[in-house]
Amino acid sequence: MADFQLCVIGSGPGGQKAAIQAAKLGKKVCIVERMEQVGGVAIHTGTIPSKALRQAIIEATGGIDHLRVRAEVKTGKLTIGELMAACQRIIATEMEIVRVQLRRNGVELIRGFGSFKDKSTLVVKSSEGEKELSAERFILAVGTEPVRPDFIPFDEDCILTSDDLLHLKRLPESLIVVGGGVIGTEFASMFARLGIRVTLVVCGQRVLNFLDLQIGEALQYHMRNRGMTLRFGEELESVKLIEADDKPSVEVCLKSGKCLQADAFLYCQGRQGVTENLGLENAGLEADHRGRVAVDENYQTANPDIYAVGDVIGFPALASTSMNQGRMASCHMFNKPRHKLRKYFPFGIYSIPEISMVGDTEEELTEKGIPFESGCAGYKEIARGQLIGDDVGLLKILFHPETREVLGVHIVGCRATELIWGASLALQMEATAEDLAKTIVVHPTFSESITMAAQDAMGWALYLPKR
Amino acid sequence: MADFQLCVIGSGPGGQKAAIQAAKLGKKVCIVERMEQVGGVAIHTGTIPSKALRQAIIEATGGIDHLRVRAEVKTGKLTIGELMAACQRIIATEMEIVRVQLRRNGVELIRGFGSFKDKSTLVVKSSEGEKELSAERFILAVGTEPVRPDFIPFDEDCILTSDDLLHLKRLPESLIVVGGGVIGTEFASMFARLGIRVTLVVCGQRVLNFLDLQIGEALQYHMRNRGMTLRFGEELESVKLIEADDKPSVEVCLKSGKCLQADAFLYCQGRQGVTENLGLENAGLEADHRGRVAVDENYQTANPDIYAVGDVIGFPALASTSMNQGRMASCHMFNKPRHKLRKYFPFGIYSIPEISMVGDTEEELTEKGIPFESGCAGYKEIARGQLIGDDVGLLKILFHPETREVLGVHIVGCRATELIWGASLALQMEATAEDLAKTIVVHPTFSESITMAAQDAMGWALYLPKR
Repeated sequence: MADFQLCVIGSGPGGQKAAIQAAKLGKKVCIVERMEQVGGVAIHTGTIPSKALRQAIIEATGGIDHLRVRAEVKTGKLTIGELMAACQRIIATEMEIVRVQLRRNGVELIRGFGSFKDKSTLVVKSSEGEKELSAERFILAVGTEPVRPDFIPFDEDCILTSDDLLHLKRLPESLIVVGGGVIGTEFASMFARLGIRVTLVVCGQRVLNFLDLQIGEALQYHMRNRGMTLRFGEELESVKLIEADDKPSVEVCLKSGKCLQADAFLYCQGRQGVTENLGLENAGLEADHRGRVAVDENYQTANPDIYAVGDVIGFPALASTSMNQGRMASCHMFNKPRHKLRKYFPFGIYSIPEISMVGDTEEELTEKGIPFESGCAGYKEIARGQLIGDDVGLLKILFHPETREVLGVHIVGCRATELIWGASLALQMEATAEDLAKTIVVHPTFSESITMAAQDAMGWALYLPKR
Repeated sequence: MADFQLCVIGSGPGGQKAAIQAAKLGKKVCIVERMEQVGGVAIHTGTIPSKALRQAIIEATGGIDHLRVRAEVKTGKLTIGELMAACQRIIATEMEIVRVQLRRNGVELIRGFGSFKDKSTLVVKSSEGEKELSAERFILAVGTEPVRPDFIPFDEDCILTSDDLLHLKRLPESLIVVGGGVIGTEFASMFARLGIRVTLVVCGQRVLNFLDLQIGEALQYHMRNRGMTLRFGEELESVKLIEADDKPSVEVCLKSGKCLQADAFLYCQGRQGVTENLGLENAGLEADHRGRVAVDENYQTANPDIYAVGDVIGFPALASTSMNQGRMASCHMFNKPRHKLRKYFPFGIYSIPEISMVGDTEEELTEKGIPFESGCAGYKEIARGQLIGDDVGLLKILFHPETREVLGVHIVGCRATELIWGASLALQMEATAEDLAKTIVVHPTFSESITMAAQDAMGWALYLPKR
């Protein structure tokens, strides 16, 4: 008999929820974690610390999460240490919450680096030596780490990945960010908010290319409005540290021939699954060139007793989706009937302005040949927008012209990530634009933009020009 | 033929929406407004200015809408003028929005004080004289004004109603507020937030007695925690201005024998329908002792050609509900089929902490003999609560133990008024606790408390103790 019915590798959001779900089904479960502390990237270098940093920056620059920074921010006065002061407490609290949950549910926590010896045996190496454990089934929730190309001389001081950023010793006055994905866009937004001159270098023609085009356009417009420089269609040629008496700087050359200089350089182009040395080959598996593991719709890998969830399986690589993947994987492997979730995962992007979306974008619908109509509402038309001073917010509802079913909701502006939950519910319940138009909301709130957009959509536009 | 098919008296939220709805149905409509400016109480002395003041106070005291005030606030340094600076701009913008909407929809705006001559004729008096207009139908949307009992020597300086408050010349160091309704509770919260010593005197045994008991309890607990003094079961005996060389103060004696002294006194006990001199008797109508007009479920008064909406018909007297009443009244009178709205109006209370609710409270369900179960989630258990520092927030879902249908959602804490819209949709669509538990939300957001409470409710509690 195997030591465990389920062994989960990795204690991030996906691994935690997978292990707890299996434990709740009465299974004997362990989590193998290579780091000293539980929580994975989400708690230690990703989701939580970056949001703590964002919160600290917002508070340090006027307190309100909108575009106009009222308090003049002197970058010389603020230290990254001050900004990160609250962060350590939050990380400690979050770890404690995870530890308590695992303990309460009887999940055994095993520290060390796990590597498959064969399909049902894991060798766990730690400072205390090596031991073996066997399990009937495994879930890989090993997460990702930043890609570090060889030609970039990372120094943890001026030339950084997002992991290093959180240990930054001083705030730069200028920063070059490479990568137009979630991480690059969020950090570029935050540092621009501090008044730092930020250049964002993107290889494609837009940031966050999975966004609805109109929302992405609005984000880019506002990022530029805040003084950020955006460079599209660029590839890195070289990155060089330039030593100097007063302070070092970084020279970044692009294949297009441009050379840029800044106090610091942040590389956010891609993350890599932490699957090297995991002995995947001994379990009959292999990772792709980005270290990712392929799964089917039940999160099963090529080996049906080994599942994989979270960032290591690729897009969307968000904490909330990873948690659900973890629960669903455990339910599937132990034959617990689970309501099929419709594929509506809400996304939240903590750029400035904030973005959220659920369902399809205009581009996706057009590509699928699904007709749609839209209804929009701007925050400047609602009292709460006036009160907070957010006149850039925009909410868009996409719906089917015949059935009126809501197909997607896209938001840019204050509270975007908080408002999206109801849209997620709406999609799940197959609500129509009419259902949203009928929903009564509190005045004055940003949520009025939902009913206003729905009323626009339905031609009930009380606030908008007659058609 | 009458001059108008519909004459709306009052240009607040209810009147505006009634007039615009009728205009959209192709009717000839006018609004009679006694004030120089459109917008009613909501724009000029109520909803909008008080929320502008609240926003200014929150920003002046650390920027984040939670309980711990980080920046030491010196009341001597802040002037009410500074706090209200943004307010005038917001009022002006809101008025402009209303004016444009009315004009765009072809609603004629008539300034002056309207009074019924008979059932279909209104005499409108203004500085330019008197004129008569006739209409087939009327909607009374005249609103309310603060009650000003004769025995209280209001002086617009130290002894005030909420209307006077917004013209306050200086911030008091101590304040006695009488009235535990929405207005008293919101202003008491705001001034306490500024470090002013606030005593809130309430005639009943709790503030906001329509709240779910648990939520009301939490609010009172946190109000006291912030240094506010609450006095229940009290009635006013006398209010006296005490002149002094340095500064005047107010002595307030209660029927229980207590005498209190403070720099200022704010009376918020009840509002009165503005129906005096409206000539209701000439239209076959009468108001009650509080100046309110009785209506049926279609907002029709005793005279079927005269409807009434908004604050003048009493509870709940919220801008969002008044708007809906206005639309529904116009639809009903002009036979436009309108989906029957279920009686689920969300309430938002801008106390500190913020409160929102939709559906029934535990007390209402118990009284109706409807069994319920509940699921709760605390903000301290979710990452966003940690990030913002709100560890007092609480979200509760009430649902039917057999059908699992959601019966009510009650929230106290940050973003309460923004989160409630999805709950409003859930009730409208007859969602179950399971539907809410399945809804995927963004991490880290306060909306995670919804799914957590629903999972608690469903016994899927991943975060909570096993049962």
